[in-house]
Amino acid sequence: MGKAGEHSFEVLKSCPHTWARAATLTTPHGVVPTPAFIPVGTQATVKSLTPDELSALGAKIVLGNTYHLYLRPGIALIEGLGGLHRFMGWHGPLITDSGGYQVFSLARLRQVSDDGVLFRSHIDGSEHFFTPELAIQLQEALGADIIMAFDECPPYSDDFDAVRQSTERTHRWAQRCQKSQQQNQALYGIVQGGMFKELRRHSATFLTSLDFQGYAIGGLSLGEPKKVTNEIVEETVPVLPEDKPRYLMGVGSPEDLFEGVSRGIDLFDSALPTRIARNGGLFTQEGRCIIRNACFRDWDGPIEEGCDCYTCQNFSAAYLHHLFKCEELLAYRLATLHNLRFVLRLMHEMRQHIIDGTFSTFKDSFLASYQPCDEDTRLAQKQKWMESGDTKFSQG
Amino acid sequence: MGKAGEHSFEVLKSCPHTWARAATLTTPHGVVPTPAFIPVGTQATVKSLTPDELSALGAKIVLGNTYHLYLRPGIALIEGLGGLHRFMGWHGPLITDSGGYQVFSLARLRQVSDDGVLFRSHIDGSEHFFTPELAIQLQEALGADIIMAFDECPPYSDDFDAVRQSTERTHRWAQRCQKSQQQNQALYGIVQGGMFKELRRHSATFLTSLDFQGYAIGGLSLGEPKKVTNEIVEETVPVLPEDKPRYLMGVGSPEDLFEGVSRGIDLFDSALPTRIARNGGLFTQEGRCIIRNACFRDWDGPIEEGCDCYTCQNFSAAYLHHLFKCEELLAYRLATLHNLRFVLRLMHEMRQHIIDGTFSTFKDSFLASYQPCDEDTRLAQKQKWMESGDTKFSQG
Repeated sequence: MGKAGEHSFEVLKSCPHTWARAATLTTPHGVVPTPAFIPVGTQATVKSLTPDELSALGAKIVLGNTYHLYLRPGIALIEGLGGLHRFMGWHGPLITDSGGYQVFSLARLRQVSDDGVLFRSHIDGSEHFFTPELAIQLQEALGADIIMAFDECPPYSDDFDAVRQSTERTHRWAQRCQKSQQQNQALYGIVQGGMFKELRRHSATFLTSLDFQGYAIGGLSLGEPKKVTNEIVEETVPVLPEDKPRYLMGVGSPEDLFEGVSRGIDLFDSALPTRIARNGGLFTQEGRCIIRNACFRDWDGPIEEGCDCYTCQNFSAAYLHHLFKCEELLAYRLATLHNLRFVLRLMHEMRQHIIDGTFSTFKDSFLASYQPCDEDTRLAQKQKWMESGDTKFSQG
Repeated sequence: MGKAGEHSFEVLKSCPHTWARAATLTTPHGVVPTPAFIPVGTQATVKSLTPDELSALGAKIVLGNTYHLYLRPGIALIEGLGGLHRFMGWHGPLITDSGGYQVFSLARLRQVSDDGVLFRSHIDGSEHFFTPELAIQLQEALGADIIMAFDECPPYSDDFDAVRQSTERTHRWAQRCQKSQQQNQALYGIVQGGMFKELRRHSATFLTSLDFQGYAIGGLSLGEPKKVTNEIVEETVPVLPEDKPRYLMGVGSPEDLFEGVSRGIDLFDSALPTRIARNGGLFTQEGRCIIRNACFRDWDGPIEEGCDCYTCQNFSAAYLHHLFKCEELLAYRLATLHNLRFVLRLMHEMRQHIIDGTFSTFKDSFLASYQPCDEDTRLAQKQKWMESGDTKFSQG
């Protein structure tokens, strides 16, 4: 575990036209230039990739899921083997979530009380009880650099009172998380408040008063329209302290990363780039392409001309098309390499443009050529993935 | 395509106690020190690995399957994209088989005549007709360095007359393959003859008279006892010319590689090391271990102490156990890296010991500690794999 002085956050430059900012996040295991995208390593692996590849792609920080690791292989086992860094062979900055989101999205038969959440494992139906204290204890055993408060993450709802009560519970849990913390990890609070701007401002104000080392915005990207996501972020960010990192959870499509960065977000995590890669959806400057489509059958060029990823440097789109048609294991890996490199390179470029004072024109230029997935398709995919129990292709 | 002078084979040293020999096989795309193991890249990919990884593992030559590539993505498509080397991104020596073995083991509804074989695709049931001439034409379009004659590969049988007739047909087909060859690839003949020593000697004698650039022994490792395999190899090898490479098809377990090398075999290919890896069977000096076994749950050390593979250098057996339990894509890859490295390193060591004159003691010492899979388990696995239609885990 690092010393207190090893955690810091320094804003280097702000965009004159948007709220975008370039900063440096320092952790005991290394430095993360922000804005940054955090690849998701749900079960102690970013699906199909080695830690070496993640480094080569430009990943500076990786996320592990406490809920999944608690169920399999068990937190005590990982602790006994020297912690999550050593277990998964990733020696750079590491973040774990608290399990809050997974308990409310993946697990079954939940009973929520102020004490905590009773749930059943999505793997074997076994019963478990998570509390804020346990979530911190588990994350301390895993030993990531950054850990998250345990929050209630209810589904998208227009019931103000219900969301208010849930948000207040998240606040009480945040305080209990702080009190139970014993290790020197950076603990981030999670702003909730559903789609109610008033509750979001209240949540951000309250959590700021608790002085966390960073602030996440949770409960978004759950199926609401993107316009709503953006408005909520716009309401929340100005309330948060300027000298602390801001983390928008669950966001990872190229267009959404731009929207988040321009609203002052420093950190993002999402399984989207890796998940759609395994389903054959590949990012290009023009938007997502579907590699299984017949047009790629004999496409001699790379997925994207000029892309510096290993896949595009070495293989034709036709080869990738063939691997997907044959369901070859290499398909998922080459696609994942491409999409992660696309997103990580994009974040690097955004940061450079913020520093150069040209972020705004860079954003406009990117979004002018990038054709996002249409809203209906996006929501249908999201619904399908959230309902799917296939961990190999849907989660992480 | 290379010039005639680019194919050569030079024996450097022979073992004084066995028939083992160290040689150098030169192809237009590079040099293969032998004895060598050839990883199987059935569908233009050694499952889960990149060409870079194959090189780093020490692979000097890779095999592609004409039958599979003919059905998917189609040979003309690969030819149009510059041939198999370029398509799969492997720029070293490459060998293709003729499709003979697959037509007789994987495809359905076969009708064999002297003309060729009518069969149905194992993928979609579509009807196809392979002839010796077509097998050569397809392999010329793929453009590998070494290509194989089209042979009849009937199941293990004790009907002498049937096997004799089939062997004679293989001989006629071998002549037709030679006649139809137009490119400067090294064409290898395939000795057949079932489990009949007399037929094997006859087949080796006849094919030798045709002066191929190399000689394979086919129709073995199909479920017969290992003692029989070894006896057939012992009958065959002395008949083959000393100055040409000898290739034992379908053999790849550590103990079998020793038996083959000590009987004068130079080249081996088998999907076994990669296939059992994907099923969680990992080679060690003591024999195969089953990584899913509970004993590995919290095993802090590598799969094998002292192993120089990427997996053992970076991850605990407990981590690999976890990945397999979670069916994570990285599991299949890390296991494949380990098993291929094990076999490729073993071949390299055998060669060095042949050169140093210590092969025989090296073999004895290895086999004294290596506990092979027992014969019943081995045959049951083989049966299961041959009957399985799951290309992701069973073939290649």
